[in-house]
Amino acid sequence: MDKFKRMPKHIGVIPDGNRRWAVGQGLPKKDGYNHGIDPGLDLYEACLKLGVEEMTFYGFTMDNVKRPSLQTKAFQKACVDSVNELKKRDADLMVIGNTDSKVFPKELLPYAMKRTRFGEGKMKVNFLVNYGWNWDLNYALNSEKTIESGNLINHIASKDISRMDMVLRWGGRRRLSGFLPIQSIYSDIYVIDEFWPDYKDQHLFGALEWYQKTDVTLGG
Amino acid sequence: MDKFKRMPKHIGVIPDGNRRWAVGQGLPKKDGYNHGIDPGLDLYEACLKLGVEEMTFYGFTMDNVKRPSLQTKAFQKACVDSVNELKKRDADLMVIGNTDSKVFPKELLPYAMKRTRFGEGKMKVNFLVNYGWNWDLNYALNSEKTIESGNLINHIASKDISRMDMVLRWGGRRRLSGFLPIQSIYSDIYVIDEFWPDYKDQHLFGALEWYQKTDVTLGG
Repeated sequence: MDKFKRMPKHIGVIPDGNRRWAVGQGLPKKDGYNHGIDPGLDLYEACLKLGVEEMTFYGFTMDNVKRPSLQTKAFQKACVDSVNELKKRDADLMVIGNTDSKVFPKELLPYAMKRTRFGEGKMKVNFLVNYGWNWDLNYALNSEKTIESGNLINHIASKDISRMDMVLRWGGRRRLSGFLPIQSIYSDIYVIDEFWPDYKDQHLFGALEWYQKTDVTLGG
Repeated sequence: MDKFKRMPKHIGVIPDGNRRWAVGQGLPKKDGYNHGIDPGLDLYEACLKLGVEEMTFYGFTMDNVKRPSLQTKAFQKACVDSVNELKKRDADLMVIGNTDSKVFPKELLPYAMKRTRFGEGKMKVNFLVNYGWNWDLNYALNSEKTIESGNLINHIASKDISRMDMVLRWGGRRRLSGFLPIQSIYSDIYVIDEFWPDYKDQHLFGALEWYQKTDVTLGG
């Protein structure tokens, strides 16, 4: 893997296309989510090997839970199952999302808004669960320090998630869909047309090959 | 143009690649900006014909002014010249940026933070000049209403700029670089590899052809 001389420290992941994949397989839409767990673990393992220091997975949003109840239950379960699998690995885990709602899975409450180290805690892994971009930003208004400092960035709900160097989106859509608006400000965005359940390590390698050729200006 | 049945109402424009274009022409980097004025007018005319209701141009940022002084002067002048040209057309113009600084061109002060209708004012045209994403968001903290409402979105500096349906970026880079973080939350992002001074209407048409095939979910 020596060819990846320039590595992103933090990779964001938008695992889109689960429902479209299920439809293509002749399955009910809700069945797609369960097929999105193993790809996440494969991607985590591949990134860990390559030395990625932090990953953030876009689990589900406060908008997503307006979907049919069977789908909502399916992606809630997929998030819980994914976290349970990560607990068996070396992840320094943090779940970020609005816990002040029934749709936030109670199994994930112990990991919300703080880091928990599993195994050797080799990589920071952030999981967005019942996340909302406006919830994230408006969270800063709860802190007196926001007003005192005149700077809300340090007080948003996701303040402990660092800037993302690269965002990978599966499923072909070329947009961020509310994924961490502050941390994605300078991110390079790479879109993979295949649906998330069809994840292959080659997708990651393709993204990294492309990343070698971009430069980082941070808006300068 | 009947083939564009689904039109974005609001198009954002990141006119990148001026300096790389100049280098490719054997010119000093600063000379690229002057070649970015006509492309903007051509794009404005093409969008007006197609019924686009609002456009936002990413002029320059508070980060950009850290560049060498000759470059800074060149892109400041290009913004002033662009606005002067738009004034001869049917634009409902608004300049958004931090006016509280010497680098904000004084010629544009009359158009800052409010709309001015030129000609028949057929299209809303927003120009970001000495803009900063963190300045934009933190601006909301100046309003008591932000704290009262618990919602900063309605009080940011760019609050009178609507959600962008599509963002077009020239120059090949696949990132937003701080371009209106709130209004770009759900935007479809289309990247054109050519540099901005090489703008052709065909770039716009290609983007619109692609846009026909995307769906709009607004995070749902």
